[in-house]
Amino acid sequence: MAPEDRIIDAVVALDPLADLPRTGWLLRGVRPCETIAEHSFGVALVAMLLVDELRREGETVDGERVLRMALVHDAPEARTGDVPMPVKGGALESAIHDLELELARQVLTTEAFASYAEAEAAESLEARIVKAADKLQMMIKASVYEQKKRGALDEFWANPKNFRDMGIPLARRVYERLRVRSGRAAPAPP
Amino acid sequence: MAPEDRIIDAVVALDPLADLPRTGWLLRGVRPCETIAEHSFGVALVAMLLVDELRREGETVDGERVLRMALVHDAPEARTGDVPMPVKGGALESAIHDLELELARQVLTTEAFASYAEAEAAESLEARIVKAADKLQMMIKASVYEQKKRGALDEFWANPKNFRDMGIPLARRVYERLRVRSGRAAPAPP
Amino acid sequence: MAPEDRIIDAVVALDPLADLPRTGWLLRGVRPCETIAEHSFGVALVAMLLVDELRREGETVDGERVLRMALVHDAPEARTGDVPMPVKGGALESAIHDLELELARQVLTTEAFASYAEAEAAESLEARIVKAADKLQMMIKASVYEQKKRGALDEFWANPKNFRDMGIPLARRVYERLRVRSGRAAPAPP
Amino acid sequence: MAPEDRIIDAVVALDPLADLPRTGWLLRGVRPCETIAEHSFGVALVAMLLVDELRREGETVDGERVLRMALVHDAPEARTGDVPMPVKGGALESAIHDLELELARQVLTTEAFASYAEAEAAESLEARIVKAADKLQMMIKASVYEQKKRGALDEFWANPKNFRDMGIPLARRVYERLRVRSGRAAPAPP
Amino acid sequence: MAPEDRIIDAVVALDPLADLPRTGWLLRGVRPCETIAEHSFGVALVAMLLVDELRREGETVDGERVLRMALVHDAPEARTGDVPMPVKGGALESAIHDLELELARQVLTTEAFASYAEAEAAESLEARIVKAADKLQMMIKASVYEQKKRGALDEFWANPKNFRDMGIPLARRVYERLRVRSGRAAPAPP
Amino acid sequence: MAPEDRIIDAVVALDPLADLPRTGWLLRGVRPCETIAEHSFGVALVAMLLVDELRREGETVDGERVLRMALVHDAPEARTGDVPMPVKGGALESAIHDLELELARQVLTTEAFASYAEAEAAESLEARIVKAADKLQMMIKASVYEQKKRGALDEFWANPKNFRDMGIPLARRVYERLRVRSGRAAPAPP
Repeated sequence: MAPEDRIIDAVVALDPLADLPRTGWLLRGVRPCETIAEHSFGVALVAMLLVDELRREGETVDGERVLRMALVHDAPEARTGDVPMPVKGGALESAIHDLELELARQVLTTEAFASYAEAEAAESLEARIVKAADKLQMMIKASVYEQKKRGALDEFWANPKNFRDMGIPLARRVYERLRVRSGRAAPAPP
Repeated sequence: MAPEDRIIDAVVALDPLADLPRTGWLLRGVRPCETIAEHSFGVALVAMLLVDELRREGETVDGERVLRMALVHDAPEARTGDVPMPVKGGALESAIHDLELELARQVLTTEAFASYAEAEAAESLEARIVKAADKLQMMIKASVYEQKKRGALDEFWANPKNFRDMGIPLARRVYERLRVRSGRAAPAPP
Repeated sequence: MAPEDRIIDAVVALDPLADLPRTGWLLRGVRPCETIAEHSFGVALVAMLLVDELRREGETVDGERVLRMALVHDAPEARTGDVPMPVKGGALESAIHDLELELARQVLTTEAFASYAEAEAAESLEARIVKAADKLQMMIKASVYEQKKRGALDEFWANPKNFRDMGIPLARRVYERLRVRSGRAAPAPP
Repeated sequence: MAPEDRIIDAVVALDPLADLPRTGWLLRGVRPCETIAEHSFGVALVAMLLVDELRREGETVDGERVLRMALVHDAPEARTGDVPMPVKGGALESAIHDLELELARQVLTTEAFASYAEAEAAESLEARIVKAADKLQMMIKASVYEQKKRGALDEFWANPKNFRDMGIPLARRVYERLRVRSGRAAPAPP
Repeated sequence: MAPEDRIIDAVVALDPLADLPRTGWLLRGVRPCETIAEHSFGVALVAMLLVDELRREGETVDGERVLRMALVHDAPEARTGDVPMPVKGGALESAIHDLELELARQVLTTEAFASYAEAEAAESLEARIVKAADKLQMMIKASVYEQKKRGALDEFWANPKNFRDMGIPLARRVYERLRVRSGRAAPAPP
Repeated sequence: MAPEDRIIDAVVALDPLADLPRTGWLLRGVRPCETIAEHSFGVALVAMLLVDELRREGETVDGERVLRMALVHDAPEARTGDVPMPVKGGALESAIHDLELELARQVLTTEAFASYAEAEAAESLEARIVKAADKLQMMIKASVYEQKKRGALDEFWANPKNFRDMGIPLARRVYERLRVRSGRAAPAPP
């Protein structure tokens, strides 16, 4: 396949991310709400800011890998839409994981798929930054929606899964600061 | 639980169906598009009309069972959103089926869940009417969207799975009529 | 007319119910808001649940008739849109009633029109269940919108017309439970 | 009542015009579509342009009266929403006319109501300009929607009621020009 | 150019005002929000009501000029969209002013442009009424949005620029009344 | 300022990008349309794919810098909204450029602002990739909207400014391929 077609095909394949809503917001009355593309943009932004602060702390991070993973981490949802998290638990989880891997392979180029797979593995520091950014973006968005009176989002703050720090102390501190700024007590240590 | 709470809880549990889009339309550029509640209303309507015509043909049908099944056939989607069909194929299918059964049990009353389970089994004439109505409603909606220039829906007409008649000749004839009215040739016999 | 056309024509004629908003919500700042099709789905759901509970209480109810009426009770609005209730009072009421009857005849099949007419008469137990479900669905929806901070709906709770029980004690008890759950005192007996 | 309250009350009473859709567009698949406030703005604009051209032709017109009528000509719809025209025919027409007059009185100040009443009478040149502008705006909007591929609007061009010129030759010439520009033949003379 | 084309061209040129949002509302979480056309309608309405009250007070006002200015005061935004006010400060202000003047000339007829230019000069009593109405409409809309729980608009009430009275005591009194009605203290005298 | 606040503040400051529409689509009838955040996501995606293909061609590219610039290249629009291009020509251009630089400084962290400034300078290969991706994303989106019948976008294909390749032959080839795939002749060489 010519490089031109490879580029156009991948962009067209991911285009639905800009029409598909983040289901979790809809379920709580935010309508219209953020799309998956907007979320992915936000995750890349948070990840970039985390990289900058980690470097200030002396950490060595491969920034390109972080940003690539952030951009494609929800790529399979261009085919399935955003399926809310509670669903993904239980015996179903590995079946969905396999499907998403296959869909990611279909919609992404070779290089982009490698980024997706690294993000899924969630092992490298870079992948963990993306995983943390995924939740940090969500909770910052929740606080913005609350401030703008859109929807009923209390349960977001009660769900410990929404505060995943992936072993990155900076991420933990952002969650804590966010709780304080939204008028909620910082969570007890796990 | 008091009957009052049973009623309110079930209605509230299914309320998200009125905020969740039918993902297939979004993927093809219809925006805004039909919600799952609007689809369920349409399926019940088509099913009612099928019952009336089948009775004219001399068939005996339990109309109440048909309408109950139509109303709750997508109940689990109040928790997961509408996951487009291509996803449901392969090894994943039975895992999703199990999950949906469990979610249906959570959101529905005992009687309503019985209707859901009968629809899923897809064996009784009544259940087959609902399954056919599910696709008939979708294809009539596709023709309405096309007539109103909303989205690009050609592929809907090319997918044989969208013309499931469940062994009901009347359903088959509606599909054929619909193809003619939308300016497409009737499909070859299977 | 062939049965196929009869089915397609009726579904197409009622299709606008999925694009037309329930005006009362718009007037109070819920935007986007429920469509007439979503409301009709909800009324059918509430009616089904009422039937189940009435049967548990020993009542004999024709469930099919109830569900048919619920599905078509707003059929004429496919031509006029939802006209808010205050308008329908006074000398205008019978003129609008006549028009709606005529529009229902135009958009519905013979059997479906019979259901519409029975619902309008509001005499049979089945028709009264549908009339009660019409308001019960509205008040449950109002409580859901309130919980999700969509719009300003206080006046809904102050309007006695929104608590019509049609002589069905179960309906009365659902209203009362709903008031309590929404943090409002139960209304004084009439 | 203090002048301040009179102003605020009237603006608040007409505020729903900015949330209520023009039903006719929705019925033909334009979604989202123009609101009544946007329509009223457009009618005032067309009316102003008609006044300017009529003056160039040597006509004497009271421009203020024209613009006042244009602004309030749909005021009662702030309470009822836009009820599509086909409905307003027949025996119902005078009943609705009476209701609208009463609603206009409720939502408008004394001076604004006088403008509404003059527009309804449709006798003065100024009122006829507004009535013509009402339809001219609609047909220009239809041509814009068509050019932007929003909805299916053919029937608008086939309905003679949409080309009401109120005895104003200039209005007639604008309709004819619009037909030509939209690729349709000019209508035969009446 | 023929009068017919002059009319159609101007209406088409201003048509985007009905699709373009008032950016300030979006920035504060009102979504969907008022369009520029809806705002312009509201400004004309407020201006009309101000004229009526000023006349009651014995003032002589040219009502036609007021309404014409109100209708076209945001005409250039049909090309640029609504650019929020903070941006327009500083050295940029006169450059934007020049551009808007040029765009207004492009989209408006000769007579309509004269109204635009008079409004921009903001010197005549009539022009000052329109400038005051521009802000009065905005603050009345803010109070309506607040009452309907749409968005977070506190900062609107804190910004003195939003209470511009253009030397018209009546305008000042409306602002004060509005503050009281929205539960805020009247501002201190400047 | 603590790192936590620095991250949260920047994300909140850019949050409006997810509510602000790309004005150019609205002006041509795409409604709802892409937001600035969705566009920025798309630009980053295109830029990433360009980097991969350029590397295959043997080019050395700093991928991190490319992706950072793509993410923040429209950051000032979080304060102003998207102002359509035609406006930015003429004497106004440098004034707007200065304003955007100042706004970027306000909303971004030090490191992110450096990326913004590099993108604006448009000199490095990395910055030119982002500039090309900015237009490539737009034209791919135009072709997707056309395929889905959303809006009237012919003029996008006629405007040479929309085919800026920034001296990157690969970008040129993607534009040409896109023209062919959308059924348009490739443009004549400049």
